[in-house]
Amino acid sequence: MELYQLDFEPVGRRGQCPADQSLLEAARQLGVDLVSLCGGKGTCGCCKVQILTGCVSEPTPSEREALSSQELGDGYRLSCQTYALGDCKLRVPPESLTAPQRTQVEGLEVTARPEPSVCTYQVQLPPPSLSDLQADAERLLEALEQQHRVDCRTIDIEVLRNLSPKLRTWNWKVQASVRDEEVVALAPWSSRHLGLAVDLGTTKIAGYLLDLSSGRTLAVQGIINPQIAYGEDVIARIARTRDAPAEAARLQELAVEALNQLAVDLCAEIGAKPEEIVEAVVVGNTAMHHLFLRFPVEQLALSPYVPAVKEALDVKARDVGLGIAPGAYVHLLPNIAGFVGADHVAVLLATEAWQAEGVLLAMDIGTNTEVCLVSDGEMISVSCASGPAFEGAHIKHGMRAASGAIEHLRLVDDRVEYQTIGGAPPVGLCGSGILDAMAQLYLAGVLDRTGRMGNHPRVRVQEGEREFILVSEEERDGRPAITITQHDVRELQLAKGAVRTGIRVLLETKGHSEEDIEQVIIAGAFGTYIDVASAVTIGMLPPLPLDRFRQVGNAAGMGAKLALISRSKRVEAQAIARRVGYIELATAPRFAQIFAQAMYIGS
Amino acid sequence: MELYQLDFEPVGRRGQCPADQSLLEAARQLGVDLVSLCGGKGTCGCCKVQILTGCVSEPTPSEREALSSQELGDGYRLSCQTYALGDCKLRVPPESLTAPQRTQVEGLEVTARPEPSVCTYQVQLPPPSLSDLQADAERLLEALEQQHRVDCRTIDIEVLRNLSPKLRTWNWKVQASVRDEEVVALAPWSSRHLGLAVDLGTTKIAGYLLDLSSGRTLAVQGIINPQIAYGEDVIARIARTRDAPAEAARLQELAVEALNQLAVDLCAEIGAKPEEIVEAVVVGNTAMHHLFLRFPVEQLALSPYVPAVKEALDVKARDVGLGIAPGAYVHLLPNIAGFVGADHVAVLLATEAWQAEGVLLAMDIGTNTEVCLVSDGEMISVSCASGPAFEGAHIKHGMRAASGAIEHLRLVDDRVEYQTIGGAPPVGLCGSGILDAMAQLYLAGVLDRTGRMGNHPRVRVQEGEREFILVSEEERDGRPAITITQHDVRELQLAKGAVRTGIRVLLETKGHSEEDIEQVIIAGAFGTYIDVASAVTIGMLPPLPLDRFRQVGNAAGMGAKLALISRSKRVEAQAIARRVGYIELATAPRFAQIFAQAMYIGS
Repeated sequence: MELYQLDFEPVGRRGQCPADQSLLEAARQLGVDLVSLCGGKGTCGCCKVQILTGCVSEPTPSEREALSSQELGDGYRLSCQTYALGDCKLRVPPESLTAPQRTQVEGLEVTARPEPSVCTYQVQLPPPSLSDLQADAERLLEALEQQHRVDCRTIDIEVLRNLSPKLRTWNWKVQASVRDEEVVALAPWSSRHLGLAVDLGTTKIAGYLLDLSSGRTLAVQGIINPQIAYGEDVIARIARTRDAPAEAARLQELAVEALNQLAVDLCAEIGAKPEEIVEAVVVGNTAMHHLFLRFPVEQLALSPYVPAVKEALDVKARDVGLGIAPGAYVHLLPNIAGFVGADHVAVLLATEAWQAEGVLLAMDIGTNTEVCLVSDGEMISVSCASGPAFEGAHIKHGMRAASGAIEHLRLVDDRVEYQTIGGAPPVGLCGSGILDAMAQLYLAGVLDRTGRMGNHPRVRVQEGEREFILVSEEERDGRPAITITQHDVRELQLAKGAVRTGIRVLLETKGHSEEDIEQVIIAGAFGTYIDVASAVTIGMLPPLPLDRFRQVGNAAGMGAKLALISRSKRVEAQAIARRVGYIELATAPRFAQIFAQAMYIGS
Repeated sequence: MELYQLDFEPVGRRGQCPADQSLLEAARQLGVDLVSLCGGKGTCGCCKVQILTGCVSEPTPSEREALSSQELGDGYRLSCQTYALGDCKLRVPPESLTAPQRTQVEGLEVTARPEPSVCTYQVQLPPPSLSDLQADAERLLEALEQQHRVDCRTIDIEVLRNLSPKLRTWNWKVQASVRDEEVVALAPWSSRHLGLAVDLGTTKIAGYLLDLSSGRTLAVQGIINPQIAYGEDVIARIARTRDAPAEAARLQELAVEALNQLAVDLCAEIGAKPEEIVEAVVVGNTAMHHLFLRFPVEQLALSPYVPAVKEALDVKARDVGLGIAPGAYVHLLPNIAGFVGADHVAVLLATEAWQAEGVLLAMDIGTNTEVCLVSDGEMISVSCASGPAFEGAHIKHGMRAASGAIEHLRLVDDRVEYQTIGGAPPVGLCGSGILDAMAQLYLAGVLDRTGRMGNHPRVRVQEGEREFILVSEEERDGRPAITITQHDVRELQLAKGAVRTGIRVLLETKGHSEEDIEQVIIAGAFGTYIDVASAVTIGMLPPLPLDRFRQVGNAAGMGAKLALISRSKRVEAQAIARRVGYIELATAPRFAQIFAQAMYIGS
């Protein structure tokens, strides 16, 4: 049997596959988890790949049905229907990957010219002698001036504390990291020049280790925010700090400890040390921003919900307890308002949404959903309390996007076709699966516009409540069925209603209608995983042609990376934050009316 | 009997005295400890006071002998010979006070126009509302701009950490302390605007609490440097940090703890809180400077003895553990060299010696003696390892300047007349007493030029060593005699030889002779207490007319105060440090020869 070399990008998996294996089967064997709801029948259209180079079999009739001619022209194929005819290089679009793998590659590919705030210079100092009694600090500054024309004025006190012994240990050859006119770190000549970008989310923390000189990402890791033990959403955590001030400090420490572990782990991946990190950028929503900096958060939960600080900040790593180079700075992007934080600024920065012409929406869907309307060069934002349902919380069989979570499903006659993360046996529903379920039940008439669950062979009454059986006890070998309940539907109506209300209030404020929207940018982990068609079906997103939606993954993390390597991008972020207006949703004139309408499914 | 009101300044003691009491007796009754060697006979000339207002008795013949006509013209009188004829206001010159009391008033009266680096502004902020959602930080900055035209860019992170609750607690009325473009402290409207100046000496620490707005000194305290437990001189302490690195941190903490206690005590005196201190200035020798900042000190004790830092530093109080306003800065004056530190810069600043015309010497005598020669607008300094003998260490009956220490003495025939601190029974000799003893023994021929002790009725041999009995067993009611031994004399020869060598090397470098010196400024506690005539007699100081010497007390502390209240003075201090050259004494061409000669008494 002929063997062909397949190269799946950007996941970077390579290997040989026999000629009689579909690309879907080959991908699985190489550990590339493609979504496939129909089990390889060519009907669900989920397992799309793009052929970059090499020959493959002709499109099948199912493919001609599932894919547009534009897509076919661009080399898109259904991997379950396609066979290699030679060595191939394939691109896997993020939406074809199951959730965990998607996080590895998700996000925009944005590059900026590296123009870091910290530059590193190698200097060789003349040792002191009885005829050259210059002090160590001034000797270093003079060498920087003479050997690199760098005019430094100060040296961080932590650098000074080690300066004299280090200069002597390293035989007067050192690498100085300079920020503005300050030496913030000192290292031997062989050291790296690293930066840390962090998206500090309410639920997840994403860390990126970058080479500041090249702008390259060297390592990436995502972890769960350990503050979750203190409440799933920010309001719960703020309430906790108010009720138990003694625990407030602990809550504040948790994020920093997590970041420190992240720094250690990221560095371990490339054999570096955290002290080689000479600059960090942290973005998060306003509450995470404040908690990370050990600012009080009480006033964020009290009307009029103003943040302690809005402008960008540069603070010493040691002042926030971050275990990188002790003299290094942490840059915090600016906030917009109490509930629209630096992470949203990062999204607008990374997507360049703020420079868009026409009418554009940029949104980050999560426990709290931030939406920004860009129109006619103006920007205005709202925050919607969408709640934790999208994270699987308060949903009977809800769960996070982990192995065994149903992330996509479809109702075919009375059968439920589903896809779990990692192909594992189903154990619950993650956010995107919940959205799909609601959309499918609505399309099948099981749910009416008000969200009331009607009759269906799979609907049963359990403990006085109707629920729709997605995976039956039999299918689970006797374990309890996985269902979606009437109560789950109500939770989701509240969540999706909040999002849609935000969108409508913004549009109304600027005198636009939904049809005017030319592009919808959906950022964030959850937004990346959802089936946009389902979101439109249930009325969370406005009914626009699907090609107007752009799922950009963790754009906040990308924004943090850009701000890490580029001073111009920081200036841009400041400009964004200053220009974005903010509406307090609850004070919008027609808020109650709009929200009541947005609760209807399909509206 | 008539009673007159007497007012002794600047000690500030007031009270009534009967007409038949001499001013000396009256002073003692009011707790003003005047020096009197002759016991009120009008012969020693030590108890001088200056009559500022009021009538007193006519000068006696003894007074006409002891005082110059210039002095008499200026109102100087011997207090033991003078009687009040009405209410009087008197000035007590520092040299007439015994040592402990002298520390309270010593020092130059220098004033500078208050021009502090930190200014305080009272602002009233409009509270936020749903129609005014500005963040707390920007609200404060805007109020400063609008109400005071103060353009601030940043707020210290520790201030930010309390900003939101404090603004609300204080009802949006706050007092902001601004340094450059940074808010470093926040307080309620009623708060004070305090600064702390510290002279961190090897042996003593002097602290001054000032009102930054007026420049007034509100409280003063002197304490012993607790690092003394780790070695009496800096070399011993440096050795300790090298031999026991674990103890190094403790040594470094001690000074900061002492300063924190000093801040608490100074504030308690005026009913203030340490957090009301919004700026501090610390001066000390290079080793104290480094230990305070937790810089390594090892290289200071190794050739070529270069400091870690020479330039002035501004560090956050929290970065050195100083318990004042957490966002406040500590300013450290610049050092000159490894053994000529910021305290010497402070002396040159306070005495304005650096601007002198002609040839001038400025010196601070102590365990380490720094000498600076100013000539033709140039400045050059040396450091002399004079050792701890002047502090009473390594001297058989030596002691610090405390109650019962003989601080002045005179040999009259075979009798020893002496003055103890506080008039207490004698228990030992402090530095100035030791100098007097050596001078008196030399003048009486008991010591020859080489320092060998000859015969005298009060000389005895004890444990194989000659010693001169200053206070006999009988005079002490059977307790051991207080003596000065041959070994003590040798120690003093080394100490005084080191000082004189420094002076000569400097003069030789610039082609001057000792007679060229137009003024000698003697700073520091020890230098204030010594009898200059004795110091000239033994050859520690050059044989110049006594009116060329100026004892200025703790000029380093004065320099710290000036730098605290005046930004111009900081700039001046930087200019001084940059302009002062430094000679490593041991490398001077004729060092050994000059030192050998300077060891002779009288030379």
